Amino acid sequence: MRPTIEQVAAHAGVGRSTVSRVLNDSSKVRPQTRLTVQKAIEELRYTPNRAARSLVTRRTDTVALVISESPERVFSDPFFAGVVRGIAAQLTSSGKQLLMTMARSSSERSALEAYLGGGHVDGVLLLSLHHEDPLPSHLGELGVPAVLGGRPLDPALAAHVVDVDNQAGAYLAVRHLVERGRRRIATITGPMDMLVSLHRLGGYRDGLTASGIEESSDLVAGGDFGERSGAVAMRALLARRPDLDAVFAASDLMALGALRVLREAGRADVAVVGFDDSPLAEQAGLTSVHQPVQDMGREMVRLLLMLIGGGAPSRSVLILTPHLATRETS
Amino acid sequence: MRPTIEQVAAHAGVGRSTVSRVLNDSSKVRPQTRLTVQKAIEELRYTPNRAARSLVTRRTDTVALVISESPERVFSDPFFAGVVRGIAAQLTSSGKQLLMTMARSSSERSALEAYLGGGHVDGVLLLSLHHEDPLPSHLGELGVPAVLGGRPLDPALAAHVVDVDNQAGAYLAVRHLVERGRRRIATITGPMDMLVSLHRLGGYRDGLTASGIEESSDLVAGGDFGERSGAVAMRALLARRPDLDAVFAASDLMALGALRVLREAGRADVAVVGFDDSPLAEQAGLTSVHQPVQDMGREMVRLLLMLIGGGAPSRSVLILTPHLATRETS
Repeated sequence: MRPTIEQVAAHAGVGRSTVSRVLNDSSKVRPQTRLTVQKAIEELRYTPNRAARSLVTRRTDTVALVISESPERVFSDPFFAGVVRGIAAQLTSSGKQLLMTMARSSSERSALEAYLGGGHVDGVLLLSLHHEDPLPSHLGELGVPAVLGGRPLDPALAAHVVDVDNQAGAYLAVRHLVERGRRRIATITGPMDMLVSLHRLGGYRDGLTASGIEESSDLVAGGDFGERSGAVAMRALLARRPDLDAVFAASDLMALGALRVLREAGRADVAVVGFDDSPLAEQAGLTSVHQPVQDMGREMVRLLLMLIGGGAPSRSVLILTPHLATRETS
Repeated sequence: MRPTIEQVAAHAGVGRSTVSRVLNDSSKVRPQTRLTVQKAIEELRYTPNRAARSLVTRRTDTVALVISESPERVFSDPFFAGVVRGIAAQLTSSGKQLLMTMARSSSERSALEAYLGGGHVDGVLLLSLHHEDPLPSHLGELGVPAVLGGRPLDPALAAHVVDVDNQAGAYLAVRHLVERGRRRIATITGPMDMLVSLHRLGGYRDGLTASGIEESSDLVAGGDFGERSGAVAMRALLARRPDLDAVFAASDLMALGALRVLREAGRADVAVVGFDDSPLAEQAGLTSVHQPVQDMGREMVRLLLMLIGGGAPSRSVLILTPHLATRETS
């Protein structure tokens, strides 16, 4: 016969409600008590009856991940693969399912909002927000727990965020190039409707200023984080400033596009630094700013589970620290 | 004021229930009538009230895509990116959202089954089934419309399938190698718990038989469709049969792994053919069996929408035809 929740409580020497709180990932349980209850659950091989639990808790044991990009971008940029791996690994141990969705158009977003607010998921993770996307604040109004990967343009739009210090990462890249003797350093930015792009551009400027180098607007070109946009931007930069001696690209894919153009132009003298330190950077020998994408995914899930359990602070922003991975291209 | 469904019906000269059937993608509407109703909907700028519609139809306007692989595999194999692009493109025009989920362990599968059967989605698409996965037949018992991409090992397990003729594709690959004068043709297979792998191995054998070449078991090595497994298998094949003159790998990633090992071993004389004809094959100059992955995604959605609308045949298997894309490696 299956053990009951009462038997687990008796075995652990706690009340029934404590076991229930542990099962529901509530943070209102002391770590030591949680361990004792988890041990009792394991020893008795207790498995909660999902259907019954769902009736009591109105839980679906499901978490949605909303990525505001096209499937093409999501599948071609290793950033997303890394974050999803972290999210999936952390969710597995909590027994919740991950549902991924990619919605960009406003009609898709409003249909999605109705679904996410309709009790079909316990919480929502959001990645790659553009503009001043109202989805996270709408979810907040609907009482749906939500955590963002990456700060939104307007900080009022989201209460719970995990981000990387993108400004510091870009600063490291530029300081490194200056140390290697470079002075005419160009940058290829991400889309300007995302705070991540503004932060990386800001860090580029900080790096120049701290090195006593004046910024030059003809050394700045825009991209969309994708490989092709990096190649297009690199061609424009070379045409405008053939004397440039380095490029900091705000993503690995754009850096690879830039490298391709530099190789075609016979410009092996130009140093290149990317941002992500994805497996692609390692393969290509590309110096890149490492961002801990799997940690980001894991921390997003930890925070969301705390919110679902009702034990998170009302606002929280966790900023992870990047570092530079130096390779052949710089 | 928003137009009502009655106004649309009057404008189109049909009954209210006919408009409703068109809105719900039912196939029980004649094509000409459907066009008339769609024209009336456009002319009056009628938009169905989603919440009200959901109450009547119990629709969520959401479709789940279940991929039975780890996030690592899903994000590294371009096969999945291609199918998802086809699915997303076809779904967008139907106004339904796509929810993707990757579940492998049996506890994940049973939790997922409870969710999918709990009215949270209108239908389910399944990809990359292993063993005799009971999920599709359980969904059938629960009355959840489901379409498989790729036939299951046991045909009784699924009623609605879109697949590629994998056996014919592998046959084409081997016949091409024989035409190029190759006789000692090895193969690297996919995982043997998937029918797709058995079909591609079967096509390899058919190609040898039709060419009057006897099969040799030491020319067959197993992989898991991933790059690394292709390299490992290639090393084993070279050790066993250094006289081999060609390899047919059952996926592009495995073919790229094999190419890497052959290059390291200085064996440019060995011809290589992959399977998928993904963008990676084109980049690498790899001859490959082209499978129409986006068409597969689109056809899966078309069939699922027919099932959701209540107008599909009780069983249907659609087999798409592959062809060979010849490049430098053969």
